[in-house]
Amino acid sequence: MFTKILIANRGEIAVRVARACRELGIATVAVYSDADENSMVVRLADEAVRVGPAGAAASYLNVPNIIGAAVKTGADAIHPGYGFLSEDPYFAEICADHDVTFIGPPPKVMEVVGDKAVARQAMTDAGLPLLPGTVDPVHTFDEAQEIAEKIGYPVIIKASAGGGGRGITVVHRPEDLRRSYQETRATAQAVFRNRDVYLERYLERARHVEVQVICDDHGNAVHLGERDCSVQRRHQKLVEEAPSPGVTPALRGRLGEAALAGARAVGYRGAGTMEFLLEDGGDFWFMEMNARIQVEHPVTELVTGIDIVAEQIRVAAGLPLSFGQDDVRISGHAVECRINAEDPARGFAPAPGLLEVFDPPGGPWTRIDTASRQGDRIPPHYDSMIAKLIVWAPTRRLALDRAIRALDEFDVAGPGVRTTIGFQRNVLAHAEFRGGDAHTDFLSRHPPEELT
Amino acid sequence: MFTKILIANRGEIAVRVARACRELGIATVAVYSDADENSMVVRLADEAVRVGPAGAAASYLNVPNIIGAAVKTGADAIHPGYGFLSEDPYFAEICADHDVTFIGPPPKVMEVVGDKAVARQAMTDAGLPLLPGTVDPVHTFDEAQEIAEKIGYPVIIKASAGGGGRGITVVHRPEDLRRSYQETRATAQAVFRNRDVYLERYLERARHVEVQVICDDHGNAVHLGERDCSVQRRHQKLVEEAPSPGVTPALRGRLGEAALAGARAVGYRGAGTMEFLLEDGGDFWFMEMNARIQVEHPVTELVTGIDIVAEQIRVAAGLPLSFGQDDVRISGHAVECRINAEDPARGFAPAPGLLEVFDPPGGPWTRIDTASRQGDRIPPHYDSMIAKLIVWAPTRRLALDRAIRALDEFDVAGPGVRTTIGFQRNVLAHAEFRGGDAHTDFLSRHPPEELT
Repeated sequence: MFTKILIANRGEIAVRVARACRELGIATVAVYSDADENSMVVRLADEAVRVGPAGAAASYLNVPNIIGAAVKTGADAIHPGYGFLSEDPYFAEICADHDVTFIGPPPKVMEVVGDKAVARQAMTDAGLPLLPGTVDPVHTFDEAQEIAEKIGYPVIIKASAGGGGRGITVVHRPEDLRRSYQETRATAQAVFRNRDVYLERYLERARHVEVQVICDDHGNAVHLGERDCSVQRRHQKLVEEAPSPGVTPALRGRLGEAALAGARAVGYRGAGTMEFLLEDGGDFWFMEMNARIQVEHPVTELVTGIDIVAEQIRVAAGLPLSFGQDDVRISGHAVECRINAEDPARGFAPAPGLLEVFDPPGGPWTRIDTASRQGDRIPPHYDSMIAKLIVWAPTRRLALDRAIRALDEFDVAGPGVRTTIGFQRNVLAHAEFRGGDAHTDFLSRHPPEELT
Repeated sequence: MFTKILIANRGEIAVRVARACRELGIATVAVYSDADENSMVVRLADEAVRVGPAGAAASYLNVPNIIGAAVKTGADAIHPGYGFLSEDPYFAEICADHDVTFIGPPPKVMEVVGDKAVARQAMTDAGLPLLPGTVDPVHTFDEAQEIAEKIGYPVIIKASAGGGGRGITVVHRPEDLRRSYQETRATAQAVFRNRDVYLERYLERARHVEVQVICDDHGNAVHLGERDCSVQRRHQKLVEEAPSPGVTPALRGRLGEAALAGARAVGYRGAGTMEFLLEDGGDFWFMEMNARIQVEHPVTELVTGIDIVAEQIRVAAGLPLSFGQDDVRISGHAVECRINAEDPARGFAPAPGLLEVFDPPGGPWTRIDTASRQGDRIPPHYDSMIAKLIVWAPTRRLALDRAIRALDEFDVAGPGVRTTIGFQRNVLAHAEFRGGDAHTDFLSRHPPEELT
């Protein structure tokens, strides 16, 4: 097992990893930008190293400084969390060059999974169902037009190197294709430095369902059931739950088998997520694979009892999985709300600032993953998530009631600070959501006025 | 179901009840003394009524004021929490006189269970094993001496009306009997206004094991397995866990059957706890029954997934239990630490004051039940518990590692404020405790210097 892990991230996921390490008896090194000098992970970790100024490019994406911190402190592994360097195969290679284990899949696997077009090809080869569309990137508008006509509107244009819901455009009418094609390519170039895009049919009414997998070096691969993340605004998840109200045990088995077939096809190792679109009839289609821990992993933890971060660290150290597929039981229901410092009434614009009041809920089956404390200032340089609220209950109905109770307790205030708390409360109380009938179009079909 | 419940308590248990009510869709009325005017439950409840000055006798034990608050606000039930009026059959009768449901067993049952001598007789009649000793109260020293000689030293003298670990004296040598007898009677008179005491054999090496039961009005009675509360200082629990490391599944079945036999024998209704002393060979002996929710109920909740407070409210409303014995599964392991504002280095003397820092841990499977917030002042008028930390993990070893991690994170500071956090950390790290070998003599066998 590792003796010291450097946590190449910030915020709640850095704290989550630090906690797992401490429970495993592994020393930790936090890295921090100037904006995070007094952050919670700096306090919780055994050591802390400054890696640059506030901007992510100069700190959390600063490979030389992060590798330097690992070498200097004698860390034998790096946990990248999510975002930042977590899906960068070149960073993983540089780690290997410095005899530091990157906690994630091998670089070659990251390359395959990270390029959505390549991943689509690999999954097709593995026999997974894909929505009609292109496997190879589309390079001209004429080509895009031809494909769109063939698969039929609406279509969705996605950046091949995309992630986190960015570089995605839905096109409902042929006359909008040119503008959308050009804009998506421009966004892809700006955000991911890669203008490649691909097209596929857009499903108006489907669920976003994703399967957690973990694979070790010893040929063991397990799935932990699915999460339903259909409640999204502009392809950004806001509410997640496990299990999905749209998945029967039989369908869970089929989804799990498909996820494992895909993971095996690319030689996956570590914790990863296979994302699918699920139609009400039970048909599902591979969307993409995420080669990292996900924000919403806690809902799976609470229904399985499995510590995914600890298991991820174990398999990265070369240990076999501590459990088998038959040990995985889905028990009860879990719901997560990503509490963002955003103003739902103003298009979810970031609303950071000083947390004069930050009083999260507690009590039975109420988990808070956060790096925020009262008196902290939310830095404007990073994403706007300030906490995750996760609850568990024996049934979905009770879990929703518990989540609403906890959201009602959650007190956040400060000059200019707005949050998604009230919005999420209204989502959870909405008859359509409570009925288990929310699909990815839920938030577009219900205007913000209805939910704020 | 009830429409409005008055919570006749304070601190974390008042918050716990308020949360359960909110999740059940029941309105709540908090009551508060002047010292608790700005307390968490006052903020969380739908209404709040002042019931008197800071001293408990004038507020939380002030029956006319509490009944008046219930009548005035139209509450149809009162949850008494633990302590204060929770075990007072006369209060329960007065509730009934005002058409307010007391959430607890019927007054007649409370009378039987509350008088330890009467309860011992009832349990003997029900066939439960009792340690050699007296069933009827002992009224003279000569009688006490005769009984002590008969059952053999060491003996334990207990107040018949006792509770919460007070009015209990262990006597190792005959020459100490007279003083201990007189002192225990004096304490019993002062604390419980009843000088009756009884004697039984004292077991040097046993575990404190207690079984949670819940009984409804429809003849259903279930047990939820046992809690081990052997780590006590002066008969006050400090660390609790479920399941007990000393209980096998077969023994759990026998304990559960005995607990249910006892509960049925006294016509029990509601949530209650049957306390036993358990010897290493598997022999166990009835100690007492607690006719209320207990401080340590969360460890049972976390290993069974059952919300004991919600269930308690349901059965008090006349609803049948929402589950049967066959639905109860013990899964994983839970540990609770009672975080007290006390100084372990000074005999656990209360150390209240201003909470300049109050930063509890969070994250995976880490539950905090508290009514404290940073900036609060711990009032000196009540007990010194400021929070309960409860963790769950798949195994006992992992649960202890998680609890230690969480204790290490727990940051409490203020002028004059001391806590048991470091002490409990050292208990959990102690080889004897980790080995599952702690008995009720654990803290007396390990001097505070070893654990602070």
